[in-house]
Amino acid sequence: MKASASREDTKQPSLSALVDLCADQMSAVNSTIIDRLQSDVPLIPELGGHLIAAGGKRMRPLLTLAGAQVAGADSHGTAKAIKLATAVEFIHSATLLHDDVIDQSSLRRGRDTANALWGNEASVLVGDFLFARSFELMVETGNINVLGRLAAAAARITEGEIQQMAITGIPETPLASYLEVISGKTAILFAAAAAAGAEIGGGNAADIAVMHDYGMKLGLAFQIMDDALDYAADAGDMGKNVGDDFAHQKITMPTIIAWQKGDEQERAFWRRTLGNADFADGDLAKAQDLLTKHKAIEASLDAARANAVEASDAIITHCCARGDQASNIIGQALGEAALFAAARNH
Amino acid sequence: MKASASREDTKQPSLSALVDLCADQMSAVNSTIIDRLQSDVPLIPELGGHLIAAGGKRMRPLLTLAGAQVAGADSHGTAKAIKLATAVEFIHSATLLHDDVIDQSSLRRGRDTANALWGNEASVLVGDFLFARSFELMVETGNINVLGRLAAAAARITEGEIQQMAITGIPETPLASYLEVISGKTAILFAAAAAAGAEIGGGNAADIAVMHDYGMKLGLAFQIMDDALDYAADAGDMGKNVGDDFAHQKITMPTIIAWQKGDEQERAFWRRTLGNADFADGDLAKAQDLLTKHKAIEASLDAARANAVEASDAIITHCCARGDQASNIIGQALGEAALFAAARNH
Repeated sequence: MKASASREDTKQPSLSALVDLCADQMSAVNSTIIDRLQSDVPLIPELGGHLIAAGGKRMRPLLTLAGAQVAGADSHGTAKAIKLATAVEFIHSATLLHDDVIDQSSLRRGRDTANALWGNEASVLVGDFLFARSFELMVETGNINVLGRLAAAAARITEGEIQQMAITGIPETPLASYLEVISGKTAILFAAAAAAGAEIGGGNAADIAVMHDYGMKLGLAFQIMDDALDYAADAGDMGKNVGDDFAHQKITMPTIIAWQKGDEQERAFWRRTLGNADFADGDLAKAQDLLTKHKAIEASLDAARANAVEASDAIITHCCARGDQASNIIGQALGEAALFAAARNH
Repeated sequence: MKASASREDTKQPSLSALVDLCADQMSAVNSTIIDRLQSDVPLIPELGGHLIAAGGKRMRPLLTLAGAQVAGADSHGTAKAIKLATAVEFIHSATLLHDDVIDQSSLRRGRDTANALWGNEASVLVGDFLFARSFELMVETGNINVLGRLAAAAARITEGEIQQMAITGIPETPLASYLEVISGKTAILFAAAAAAGAEIGGGNAADIAVMHDYGMKLGLAFQIMDDALDYAADAGDMGKNVGDDFAHQKITMPTIIAWQKGDEQERAFWRRTLGNADFADGDLAKAQDLLTKHKAIEASLDAARANAVEASDAIITHCCARGDQASNIIGQALGEAALFAAARNH
């Protein structure tokens, strides 16, 4: 991030302002993660630690911490937000462990997946453990409303994942179905994480609603980007296997656009590959050519950016309306973070 | 159950007194299950309904309802207990779905498993959904202590399951490790279900503690029986595949006893089969012969019965000490239910 932010030719949005604002609290989250991964069963900290230590950008817990700041949380509220942020990261980690089992993935964040190293059984069970532990953490905050918010989000995540299975292999899936899938499987957790932070921090109804919408749009931008880059990036950049979605017959925004703009011959290609999993050498390159021909990646990136800009504008407007310096700073940082989610090189 | 209770030659303990006492409330639980399985995603009620409609004895939610009765719950407490009982059944169902994926089982309660019908992916995700939905139900009771109790139990369940993986294929596992495994994977949910019912029903600390211990011992009895009968019953009686544990190299009380009493030649057999999964025709029969030789099934049934008797005596003593008729009736019903868990023919 630092490297691209310092390039003179492009002013890439960066996450660093938000990361800096939450640095101390995120450090407390990281300690809490390690502490709460402990168990008499050694496999749990081992496997859980492998995944969580690999990092990622910790966007979701960051939104919880930022939500508390938007709400002007006192030290008591901040302490609770740190527990909630840890719970959010545990929920996210649980879904990653189960996703990798379901997708039979072997690479995540540039490392072997937990299921590749320890097997599917362990990944399913440690995912369940992290999920249960996340609720224990939420209980400790004593706020049952926030708990209900995250429990509902967790249910909605699984609905999104199941809906994703239902559209898998159906290249003629309408865009609305795809957006419903990613709202559930991805965006709702960003939304709930951000809103829960505002709520635990003592924010008013407007703070909570604005953070919810912000998280939702940022989450949509994030997932649309991720899906677009699955056809564009190479494994080194992304920390995952390129073409995975194609091989798994996943229907994403680029393929939906290419299908809609494609002629009969092209649709036959999509039916054979995405539809029937009848793959031949060179099919991925052919798919990429078709996406290029129809500007499907560009259109997807535009859609991601549109969501990010909406999120950014709304949070900046909300925070800056207050007039105080602290609100201004967190609002600007969140605004840039949303744009970062739709920036190309990360 | 009715048939065996009416036999003149044996006075088999029965679950029917407890079932009758909770009949109206259990009917409300069944309605709530159907209601809360609803989702815009049709696979969820379909797959969840397949598992839950298949029934089973609903022992865990029954203990929640009974716990509320022991506490003398008013109508308000009873309504909350019905929600909690539903949440308990959802947690249990989620673990069954994930267990069947892990064990690659094809038969449960006499029917095809969900993973056999819908695939592992759907079973993992619907399990996650049921787990999340259970927390939504708990949130609705407004009691965060009870929620914490069940969240901790859910974490402990997964620890028990992981510990079970760790002892799989190790025939020399000590009995204490086995007991720790089944305390986690099975008994803790009976304990938490029973204690949560007493707590939501407004019971005092003694009510809650007694119900917790009762549930724990009943749960141990239940699992020890289940493991013993895996070598003894036939599939029609059990609704599952006999010899499954042997084929999956699971270490249970009968095999631990047979190992401990076995000579070197017998231990070589257990090492080859349970240890190395090097199975030949006739091995299951040979294993059953060795268990018979060392009275390993009988000793396991004795251990189950000892736990059941302790649970039964303690709950009857606790409830009857109150002197009122209602306490007497629920105490006696729970006492018999514990003995039922260790009775042979169910």
